[in-house]
Amino acid sequence: MSLIVVGTMAFDAIETPFAKTDLIIGGSATYVAYAASNFLQPIQQISIVGYDFPKDEMQELEKRGVTMEGVKVVPDKKSFFWSGRYHMDMNSRDTLVTDLNVLLDFDPKVPESYQSAEFLMLGNLDPKIQMSVIKQMKVRPKLIVMDTMNFWMESTMPELEAVLKEVDVLMLNDSEARQLSAQFSLVKAAKEILKMGPKYLIIKKGEHGALLFHGDQVFFAPALPLEDVFDPTGAGDTFAGGFIGHIARTKDISFDNMKTGIIVGSAMASFCVEKFGPQRLKEITRADIDNRIQQFVELVNFDIELV
Amino acid sequence: MSLIVVGTMAFDAIETPFAKTDLIIGGSATYVAYAASNFLQPIQQISIVGYDFPKDEMQELEKRGVTMEGVKVVPDKKSFFWSGRYHMDMNSRDTLVTDLNVLLDFDPKVPESYQSAEFLMLGNLDPKIQMSVIKQMKVRPKLIVMDTMNFWMESTMPELEAVLKEVDVLMLNDSEARQLSAQFSLVKAAKEILKMGPKYLIIKKGEHGALLFHGDQVFFAPALPLEDVFDPTGAGDTFAGGFIGHIARTKDISFDNMKTGIIVGSAMASFCVEKFGPQRLKEITRADIDNRIQQFVELVNFDIELV
Repeated sequence: MSLIVVGTMAFDAIETPFAKTDLIIGGSATYVAYAASNFLQPIQQISIVGYDFPKDEMQELEKRGVTMEGVKVVPDKKSFFWSGRYHMDMNSRDTLVTDLNVLLDFDPKVPESYQSAEFLMLGNLDPKIQMSVIKQMKVRPKLIVMDTMNFWMESTMPELEAVLKEVDVLMLNDSEARQLSAQFSLVKAAKEILKMGPKYLIIKKGEHGALLFHGDQVFFAPALPLEDVFDPTGAGDTFAGGFIGHIARTKDISFDNMKTGIIVGSAMASFCVEKFGPQRLKEITRADIDNRIQQFVELVNFDIELV
Repeated sequence: MSLIVVGTMAFDAIETPFAKTDLIIGGSATYVAYAASNFLQPIQQISIVGYDFPKDEMQELEKRGVTMEGVKVVPDKKSFFWSGRYHMDMNSRDTLVTDLNVLLDFDPKVPESYQSAEFLMLGNLDPKIQMSVIKQMKVRPKLIVMDTMNFWMESTMPELEAVLKEVDVLMLNDSEARQLSAQFSLVKAAKEILKMGPKYLIIKKGEHGALLFHGDQVFFAPALPLEDVFDPTGAGDTFAGGFIGHIARTKDISFDNMKTGIIVGSAMASFCVEKFGPQRLKEITRADIDNRIQQFVELVNFDIELV
């Protein structure tokens, strides 16, 4: 059993109302890999980095069972760099700098050794790149999950629509779901989006939790109420990593198991925001994860007798 | 067993981005009574209305077991009137008109026949009025629940602090919890507010659900994802009515039963927003309520095996 993760591995510089970083490690595929590798190995990574991406970060990921054969290292270019500043609510943010660098050349080749993967997680990327990876798979994976963002809805909608027809699970945030569907009500938005191709839709609402839609079924998982959100960067990708990690480990793609996957993803995301970058994800143990999941059980569990 | 409900009975005029009403029935105690009377009777109402409050609305409430002995009818004044306009998100609103009318004279007397009540629900009112009702009770009720709003934090904070020391459960919305505690994080806000007197705190987050805090325990209930929110007016009071109605019916004031109460309150609120004013609350049956509660069970229920 294995999982392919496609996405960015990058540098970030982050400002919050409370603190500020220099260059730290970021990128969607980095967060997904750190989260998912708690649940299954290998994680077959597909990404692109420049000469400046730290060797010890690669080694740290390899130690966790993340295969680097699909990660291209470009010797004469810099890694993708993003810098942003969060507002007081820690939900909205302004982008300060986006230096695409190596991302301009990203044309991923799926290594032969990845071809048997049963699960495919497509991080937020140009839909053309997402489609290219899907088309390279000789046997369609059992489950294809994709993330996307408003930028692609505005700049390359036909390509986004094409890839939506090829995936099983779409993940996006609430404002992106509204934009994609032209519906304000998330229930109506979900109905529209499920007509575009995906059989499952996950709408991420940040501190307000996440919704899973499938046909007429709906499931809701809260975010863990936290004393402090230190840095929300990567929380969505970490959520994705916990979700797909759980699904790939259990090999069960039923709606009921996706509900559990969303709880696992929410638990992983609740760690991510406790420190800058993926730092907290490197520290936690399996026991920490189990304790956190137990907190979710207690948070939402209730007994009721209908009378 | 009985429940005293203190609050306004009033007229509203409401504009949403989609529709508009003339004068309709409103008021916190009206919504609480319509919701709670599904779970126990009598509801012992304390309020004040003018000559213009419709007799048939009073009779409708009496038919549902709402006792009017504590509702003063002022023959030469008009009922309290509020008019507001909701924004596109249906969460925020602007007040257009507030005519206090009879509310200026509200100095409630607890009728002798109400004195044995075990449960007391204090709707959002001047804290002096809330305190006066508490002081008039010869035997302290088993559970006192109060609602409040930002206006009292700004205009009469010492009186609000005094009444907070006398109640068991405080309900307010997220922005009010932040204002009262001077904390942005709701977890930190809850810790501060629980030091002010109440042993239980319910933070209402509208479409994002509700949180219950007690000591180190926390419980979360989502709002039901709805296709349309037609009119959110009264949803918070309807939530309060479902909550206190369930608690008073079961006479169980444990944390676990309050969790169930919050689910019942959320179910009642999900009906309230489906039509203007308390209209939908007048139509629903006990079977409708049970079905709706079952939807909440399905919405949040998941199985997980920790491995």
